[in-house]
Amino acid sequence: MTRGSSAAAKGVYLFGTGTAEGDADMSELLGGKGANLAEMASLGLPVPPGFTITTEVCAAYYASDEKLPDSLKPEVLAAIDAIGKAAGRTFGDEDNPLLVAVRSGSRASMPGMMDTILNLGLNARSVKTLAKKTGDERFAYDSYRRFIEMYADVVLNVDQGVFVDLLDNFKNLNGMSLDTDLTAEDWREIIEDYQEAIEAETGTPFPEDTSEQLWGAIAAVFGSWQNPRAIIYRRMHSIPDSWGTAVTVQAMVFGNMSERSATGVAFTRNPSTGEKELYGEFLPKAQGEDVVAGIRTPQPLTEAAAESSRSPGASLEALMPDAMRDLRRVFDRLEKRYRDMQDVEFTIENGKLWMLQTRSAKRTAQAAIKVAVDFVKEGVLTMEEALLSVDAQSLTQLLHPTIEPDALRDLLVTGLPASPGAASGEIVFNAAEAEALKVQGRQVILVRTETSPEDIHGMVSSVGILTARGGMTSHAAVVARGMGLPCVAGAGQLRIDEEAGEMRVGQKRLVKGDIITIDGASGQVINGRAPMRMPELSGDFATLIAWADKVRRLKVRANADTPRDALKAKTFGAEGIGLARTEHMFFDSDRILAMREMVCASDEPARRAALARILPMQRQDFVELFEIMEGAPVTIRLLDPPLHEFLPRQPREIEALAKALGITLEKLTARIAELTEFNPMLGFRGCRLHIRYPEITEVQARAIFEAAIIVSKKTGKTVVPEIMIPLVAWRQEFDILAVIIKGMAEAVQQETGSKVEYQLGTMIEVPRSALCAGEIAAEPNGAEFFSFGTNDLTQTTLGLSRDDAAPILANYAGRGMFEAEPFITLDHDGVGELVRIAMERGRRWNRALKVGICGEHGGDPASIAFFDRAGLDYVSCSPFRLPVARLAAAQSALRGKMR
Amino acid sequence: MTRGSSAAAKGVYLFGTGTAEGDADMSELLGGKGANLAEMASLGLPVPPGFTITTEVCAAYYASDEKLPDSLKPEVLAAIDAIGKAAGRTFGDEDNPLLVAVRSGSRASMPGMMDTILNLGLNARSVKTLAKKTGDERFAYDSYRRFIEMYADVVLNVDQGVFVDLLDNFKNLNGMSLDTDLTAEDWREIIEDYQEAIEAETGTPFPEDTSEQLWGAIAAVFGSWQNPRAIIYRRMHSIPDSWGTAVTVQAMVFGNMSERSATGVAFTRNPSTGEKELYGEFLPKAQGEDVVAGIRTPQPLTEAAAESSRSPGASLEALMPDAMRDLRRVFDRLEKRYRDMQDVEFTIENGKLWMLQTRSAKRTAQAAIKVAVDFVKEGVLTMEEALLSVDAQSLTQLLHPTIEPDALRDLLVTGLPASPGAASGEIVFNAAEAEALKVQGRQVILVRTETSPEDIHGMVSSVGILTARGGMTSHAAVVARGMGLPCVAGAGQLRIDEEAGEMRVGQKRLVKGDIITIDGASGQVINGRAPMRMPELSGDFATLIAWADKVRRLKVRANADTPRDALKAKTFGAEGIGLARTEHMFFDSDRILAMREMVCASDEPARRAALARILPMQRQDFVELFEIMEGAPVTIRLLDPPLHEFLPRQPREIEALAKALGITLEKLTARIAELTEFNPMLGFRGCRLHIRYPEITEVQARAIFEAAIIVSKKTGKTVVPEIMIPLVAWRQEFDILAVIIKGMAEAVQQETGSKVEYQLGTMIEVPRSALCAGEIAAEPNGAEFFSFGTNDLTQTTLGLSRDDAAPILANYAGRGMFEAEPFITLDHDGVGELVRIAMERGRRWNRALKVGICGEHGGDPASIAFFDRAGLDYVSCSPFRLPVARLAAAQSALRGKMR
Repeated sequence: MTRGSSAAAKGVYLFGTGTAEGDADMSELLGGKGANLAEMASLGLPVPPGFTITTEVCAAYYASDEKLPDSLKPEVLAAIDAIGKAAGRTFGDEDNPLLVAVRSGSRASMPGMMDTILNLGLNARSVKTLAKKTGDERFAYDSYRRFIEMYADVVLNVDQGVFVDLLDNFKNLNGMSLDTDLTAEDWREIIEDYQEAIEAETGTPFPEDTSEQLWGAIAAVFGSWQNPRAIIYRRMHSIPDSWGTAVTVQAMVFGNMSERSATGVAFTRNPSTGEKELYGEFLPKAQGEDVVAGIRTPQPLTEAAAESSRSPGASLEALMPDAMRDLRRVFDRLEKRYRDMQDVEFTIENGKLWMLQTRSAKRTAQAAIKVAVDFVKEGVLTMEEALLSVDAQSLTQLLHPTIEPDALRDLLVTGLPASPGAASGEIVFNAAEAEALKVQGRQVILVRTETSPEDIHGMVSSVGILTARGGMTSHAAVVARGMGLPCVAGAGQLRIDEEAGEMRVGQKRLVKGDIITIDGASGQVINGRAPMRMPELSGDFATLIAWADKVRRLKVRANADTPRDALKAKTFGAEGIGLARTEHMFFDSDRILAMREMVCASDEPARRAALARILPMQRQDFVELFEIMEGAPVTIRLLDPPLHEFLPRQPREIEALAKALGITLEKLTARIAELTEFNPMLGFRGCRLHIRYPEITEVQARAIFEAAIIVSKKTGKTVVPEIMIPLVAWRQEFDILAVIIKGMAEAVQQETGSKVEYQLGTMIEVPRSALCAGEIAAEPNGAEFFSFGTNDLTQTTLGLSRDDAAPILANYAGRGMFEAEPFITLDHDGVGELVRIAMERGRRWNRALKVGICGEHGGDPASIAFFDRAGLDYVSCSPFRLPVARLAAAQSALRGKMR
Repeated sequence: MTRGSSAAAKGVYLFGTGTAEGDADMSELLGGKGANLAEMASLGLPVPPGFTITTEVCAAYYASDEKLPDSLKPEVLAAIDAIGKAAGRTFGDEDNPLLVAVRSGSRASMPGMMDTILNLGLNARSVKTLAKKTGDERFAYDSYRRFIEMYADVVLNVDQGVFVDLLDNFKNLNGMSLDTDLTAEDWREIIEDYQEAIEAETGTPFPEDTSEQLWGAIAAVFGSWQNPRAIIYRRMHSIPDSWGTAVTVQAMVFGNMSERSATGVAFTRNPSTGEKELYGEFLPKAQGEDVVAGIRTPQPLTEAAAESSRSPGASLEALMPDAMRDLRRVFDRLEKRYRDMQDVEFTIENGKLWMLQTRSAKRTAQAAIKVAVDFVKEGVLTMEEALLSVDAQSLTQLLHPTIEPDALRDLLVTGLPASPGAASGEIVFNAAEAEALKVQGRQVILVRTETSPEDIHGMVSSVGILTARGGMTSHAAVVARGMGLPCVAGAGQLRIDEEAGEMRVGQKRLVKGDIITIDGASGQVINGRAPMRMPELSGDFATLIAWADKVRRLKVRANADTPRDALKAKTFGAEGIGLARTEHMFFDSDRILAMREMVCASDEPARRAALARILPMQRQDFVELFEIMEGAPVTIRLLDPPLHEFLPRQPREIEALAKALGITLEKLTARIAELTEFNPMLGFRGCRLHIRYPEITEVQARAIFEAAIIVSKKTGKTVVPEIMIPLVAWRQEFDILAVIIKGMAEAVQQETGSKVEYQLGTMIEVPRSALCAGEIAAEPNGAEFFSFGTNDLTQTTLGLSRDDAAPILANYAGRGMFEAEPFITLDHDGVGELVRIAMERGRRWNRALKVGICGEHGGDPASIAFFDRAGLDYVSCSPFRLPVARLAAAQSALRGKMR
């Protein structure tokens, strides 16, 4: 019997120092936080006693219309009793109250996305006991008002603004400015105001009964699984709704109890660089949320860090050396146990260290690589494990451009280097604007005083993030690193006025739409657009990718239309060119006229005359590509786009073109009208063009063959170009053009006396091609290779135009419909099914059929894994995505072995 | 060993009265003509002796670069010897010359498409013998010059204009006007001119050697298989190029030898009406091609026909009663043997009847039905055979509108009622114009003095044909009947000036583009557009369709959006409505404003307000549909098209709409721009609209449910509407809308206290839907029915926009790429494969899944057969195509049993 199907399944798992009912492998049931707390407890690390309510209970909660199951009550009561015993206190006891924290914890880490309630168990009576016991009345009432604020927010849905207003009023009336100015008495007064406001708003008094508090909190934390922030986060990270969250209830420890108390977060290694150095921040006399909220500036852990950052605050090492020593010891235990870099939350209560959380640390791609390579050196991981430990997608971070080192920089301000990479874009001041401009294809940098989970959709839409406030572990910094976005955080001199749509740095004023450049590696913010330099593969990165190359089966090629692209492709390890789009060679200003002449030619002789001018340019393009690729395969796609794409659209340009071509405006206008289509995506393009104007095919074939001969002679290596016919849906289309190309091969062979070798294949980009792949590949004289054009294949299979899809897909994604956007990650069930069908049928009729993919999915790790499993020979992607593809292909091969 | 693979296969098959090496079943090898001549010979009918060279020899001819195989020579020589013996003459003997006819004959009848050479064997010496033997010098030389003309045309490729000019010159010089004015001496002189002209053109003298003549003729007839006329005809009739033609060489008999000679064509029954009456035409003292060419007006066969047509010429019955009696006897034998109506060519030489050809007669749909029903009555055919004998596609002829009987007719002229049906259209005077206008979606009537095979592409493009010259068996009449096009032939008062683009009837002058109406049933030509009446099912038609209904498995439904359509559908036997498009209900002028208001609404409340006005109209539409259909299933498709289709395009209309809607022009223009898409076919439509604006779904569902309750109460029969969600590609899309529709069903049920029943299904119109059909149909709560939207499914599967496809498909068809246009007959291998996949997967996950098809393929016989085999439950087509669908479904069922 599986766990899920048991009616009487255990709903509550206990843990405490030295013992636990769960372990780290049970995150599915206990959530990541609960499982790791249990694990840490088992390891004997200092963990406040607590228990976790399982995700199954969450599922039951949603299945029964948001009601907690009856069986839960006795389990929770027994568990809270057990915590009390371990802590030497009693929940609900006014003389010796046990206070607890109630936290959410899903299987996947979702930092800050769901709700937490601290200090639960306080009421008008027990707060007095707390004050007496700690001898710190102010601490007790501060804790109480924090609890009331959180509880009101999370459980009672009272707007936080109410409390902010009350507090501000109080301060104004009493001439105070900082929270620390308030005395215990002040807080008591404010708490009364709070409670009145809550009763006014909700119609019932704030619960004094600690049981009522507890059940309300548990239900609310389960409920927070479906809050909008959490839903957006899950969509972004492909986390299924069905996973649900666990709830952990844990005895409170107080980082804000005394001067010898503190709270902090730390990483076992540097999450930005991967260096093996203890890294983190803490706030003395504070509770956990203060660090993440970025309101006070945190202090470094180590003396070394304090020195290098010239921190005004002392380090933990200096302030509480014993706690620091304990923390280092904990770190060793954790890395050994988890075989991974960890990210922990801790609290020091009166000098004693308590561990509140550990998890696999988020890190930059650079750090991930360094950590992976170092772990292999340290003997912690095998090469294979190291390869699997790095998120292939994240490598794009390293392939971000950086600012040219010797460029002149018009420096505006410097903040913290929170997430590496550089980016230029228009300034926007809120998430909605970022989203709106992204849809228009504009590149924006989101500038905020600080970010919060509500800003996530805007962050996704930006090329970089800049904040005025917050540290290296602030929300902006953590999320940006996770997304691989450049981020400069805590640029304190920045004054942002969102309403006015402007920001100021000293005398300088920038407004919405102004361009800035941020450098996430140095923390610099630069006025205007800075010149960028493209990244290179070296060091640990090169080591890791070299390991990847050893294990992958799938070959990688690049989509490259120009010599510049081809050079980039080689730098990034392309084993060939999988797609050279010949039309891109004609949009250059010095060539487009010949192309337009061809498009507007009134008959075949005129078309041939224009083509004759195009021939030498096209031949030279191919000569350069072949030379650069030094015998590696080059797949050249014959002219593909609808001809109207080559013609101008603006009346003035049209007039100018008519003059340049020496034809009447009427004639040109008529030709443009003739080429206009209702659905150009489904129109006169690809092989349809070639069959209508075979002279285009002839000239392109000639250019390819002549270039191949030139380069073969020059280099002594035979160049065997792969000629790709686009948009073939019927075998006859392929045959008609194959005859023309063969004829041209024979002609060039005769003219030059050199042997012409080539392969002929087709793109699979409409469903019919995939369904009839057997016929298209069948010998004799069928296609020798296929390349899936998954962009177009996705459009036709889904019946969804990419140019028109944005609002439709946004609406769908908003409903959690896709695990991943189908133009980014291959739609496995629909388009993928056609890929499988085409593979099976193509290879059945032509065992030697070579198959690749050249759509943008060729650079997406999830899609690459699919193509690997489907048995393709290679993927082709943009040069910058080659390292991603190489690592993803290796990971797929390794996972294949594990299956 | 099969015939085709034998190297030493017999290449020549002999036949002669009473004996033959072949028979009627060998048309694949001997061509239709050769096989039927052999059969007639076997039956003891009077057939001039001859032999047939097989289609395999034709294949060998094309396989070896248009060279006749060496093995053929001895076979042909032996055969020509045998003919000579049977005829008592010798080929090439100057004293007793055997003259032969050399004719083509393919497996399928291709009348007039390939070449024929008569009188072969004549030369300067044998013509004298012929003159002496027949005692008719003029006949001999006339025969000789005909041979020279034909041979020069077919074998030597000399332009016929040369001979026309020479003959005209001669006549002018000698003050003659008719061919019959010329004497034998004149012909001799002209023949000399002809031969000089031929030598001048070709560089060699006209062949005197009869062997050379024979081999030249055989090769030329094989060669005519690839002449442009033949290629176009094959493309139109889906005849594979690979079939090839046979060549029949036969002793000449002379219909032009004497006054007791004649040549004619006849049908065993009336090919226009199907009446059992001998029907045909003949020309005294003429050779075969004279009848078909329509140059002389032929005379009727029977006295009855002569009377009813008030023929100026005497009937064959009157002129040669013995030959007529023989012909009747032959007819009886032929109908008994072939169990089908026959079409024969005969020649009478000096009173003796010779049969030159018999074949299954082409007939109008009306005739086909009457003949089929009569044959069942006569005990010749079974009901099943009768059903299979009628071309389902041809029934559309009977479903052509006819002119309202009491309409006022502005009569221009009356010709022969050559092919039934009536049509109105713009006049065009040549085939190229007809084609050009057809592409623009215009309806044209092709008006020609007479038509020839070169006009075929223009005839295909027209809605009707009108000729000034030619009889009921003229080219125009025969081809029009074959195509099911209305035709009025031989309207002798018509004077056509193609150059000037005008025609005159007496004082009236009409020019290109003027509208006329032709009535192929009465032969009337009417000025302007005449009011039309729609056809009904009755008589033999009703009998046949009733038989069809007994044997078919597939149900038939109609696509009907309006009460008018629904009534038509019922008249034509619809068993339900397979597609009611709700958007069509909103293009009416009195409703479009509410729709436009909805489309332009700036928020949900405004959209709901507009929808509230739409609700009662929509409800009333459904009430009427349900009432008319009396409990038969009605499938209602929710709003499908892109919203911009409801908005105007012309600036003036846009301005007017802005005023009517009370919004600014800017706002309306912005909304139109917002809704504009690059590829509307792949855009914001179908369920994508509904998911974005669920209030549309709600209102449509409410209208359907309320209407169902109203009609259920009124009629006492529960109406169970089938609600169809368009464009579903993901199961989630279906689920989201299913929840909304279910909610509305519950709401209406509560409001009215009446039970709401319905079925919910989806269209399968993008490849993803077909590939993921299992998921979409999977229980619980999956689609209860599918309807293939094969129009859109074809567009997406082929990646080909229907609106943009015309020039592409025309280019492809010109290359013989399609057996049938994929938007007319389902693309079996591509789209059909998706249909098979969807059927298999859908039914695997939901055994009770009901499946139909509502694209235009639902009315195409070949597609219907496919859907029947694929196991669909029903096809839905336009009301007028229902009889076609019913018969096609029956034929498919019968063929299925035969398999």
